Amino acid sequence: LVLAGLILVKLGGSVITFKDRPFKANYEVIDRLSMELSEAYASFNGALIVAHGGGSFPHPIAAKYGVHEGLKEGVNHRGSVLGYALTQDAASSLNRVIVSSLLRHGVPAVSLQPSAFLIARRRVIVSSFLEPVKALLKHRLIPVPFGDAVMDEELGFTIISTERIIRHLAVKLGASKVIVCTDVDGVYDKDPKRYADAKLIRKVCSSNLPNILESMTPSTSPDVTGGMLHKVVELYELAKLGVESEVINALKPGLLKQALMGIRGLGTTITA
Amino acid sequence: LVLAGLILVKLGGSVITFKDRPFKANYEVIDRLSMELSEAYASFNGALIVAHGGGSFPHPIAAKYGVHEGLKEGVNHRGSVLGYALTQDAASSLNRVIVSSLLRHGVPAVSLQPSAFLIARRRVIVSSFLEPVKALLKHRLIPVPFGDAVMDEELGFTIISTERIIRHLAVKLGASKVIVCTDVDGVYDKDPKRYADAKLIRKVCSSNLPNILESMTPSTSPDVTGGMLHKVVELYELAKLGVESEVINALKPGLLKQALMGIRGLGTTITA
Repeated sequence: LVLAGLILVKLGGSVITFKDRPFKANYEVIDRLSMELSEAYASFNGALIVAHGGGSFPHPIAAKYGVHEGLKEGVNHRGSVLGYALTQDAASSLNRVIVSSLLRHGVPAVSLQPSAFLIARRRVIVSSFLEPVKALLKHRLIPVPFGDAVMDEELGFTIISTERIIRHLAVKLGASKVIVCTDVDGVYDKDPKRYADAKLIRKVCSSNLPNILESMTPSTSPDVTGGMLHKVVELYELAKLGVESEVINALKPGLLKQALMGIRGLGTTITA
Repeated sequence: LVLAGLILVKLGGSVITFKDRPFKANYEVIDRLSMELSEAYASFNGALIVAHGGGSFPHPIAAKYGVHEGLKEGVNHRGSVLGYALTQDAASSLNRVIVSSLLRHGVPAVSLQPSAFLIARRRVIVSSFLEPVKALLKHRLIPVPFGDAVMDEELGFTIISTERIIRHLAVKLGASKVIVCTDVDGVYDKDPKRYADAKLIRKVCSSNLPNILESMTPSTSPDVTGGMLHKVVELYELAKLGVESEVINALKPGLLKQALMGIRGLGTTITA
């Protein structure tokens, strides 16, 4: 079986959950996106990985226990360890919701728990076991990894964002394209939810990247992975290695399917 | 941190689910066993892995699609691939139930999806990534793997039983003991649910093993991993490598906790 390209899709946490309501999945949107993925996949002979963020499942717990900061020693040790476990449970719980929805739509989706197949050192992925994901793709199964609380050789544990996992997989597996589904139309010069005059940027590349990064402010929701600023940095690093990405608004019906079918210019393109 | 021994516990599928009712977990038993694990762990300074079987979650689907036989080609290919995905989803769904229950009892349990960290070849584990499980144990987190539908280099995919995963981890990590929780008092010369004259065997060792294997009959429930016969073979292989195991009846309150506290002779001891 020769694969005609590998596409990585990210379903953002703000799209598949209600970010201000802990453990509340947006089943309606998840169902529609599963349908779009199912329809696109049926007429597509490439390989697909569908990764997703955690949104209101792991983020509030991770923030409460400071899981992204690593293991705490002393009096906070026991709580810190439990915080890690609770965060991983929350991330995996949302993963079940996504995989089940895809399966209901006939998409042969399979969980791929990042904390079981990779290790970080100071928040950077330093070691991973990719035989399972390669085997899944070979048989046209669709791996579903997610932003996860993972073991870290120096910090004890940390959070690895979905973007970082996507970047790792895209580089190691040789992806042709990344599609990032968010709840806004693309990358803006500032947070469009807070500033009415925020401007959509159609293309992020080396010439405008410094200005964009300078004007962007950190996310307001309890997103321990850094919001849109982090996304742009990660996706630009990927673009430099030759993998373009497209940030689209997946709350608009049909956009994910169109992006999967190869239609361009639906949101922001990040290129080198 | 120096670990005072590693104990691997298996919660059998027949204990934590109702084997004849698909996707029906036995919440009452799961809750009690979580409490026993929590109490024992509080006064125990060793490392612990809690693995579990799939019972009525994955087994009926795996049997229906023949997932243990591997990927089917031709007209059955698409269904076969979906069958794999459905089986893995079912196994991971029960894993969430177990991990959540342990967390409710304050046990820092963390999922460890076998299909994400190991690969088989003709049903034998040939490659695995053990850095995450080692890191979890180092920080006194409790990994929770399970019998899983995994990728197989020759068969496409297959089922790897919890016993086989336990044996792999016990050998690679250097376990001191394995406790296998079942719904009967131990290993019998024949199925005690079918034969009133079945005799409990207190100790399985090299001298009586051949007779035991000969008298035992395959499991009657849709257990694609081979029932008690398979358990005895796997555990005896482990015993030959120096790791003793104890098969106990976990439907009897207190037995798991007693076994964890080091009390012997509660069921059947399997030794070399």
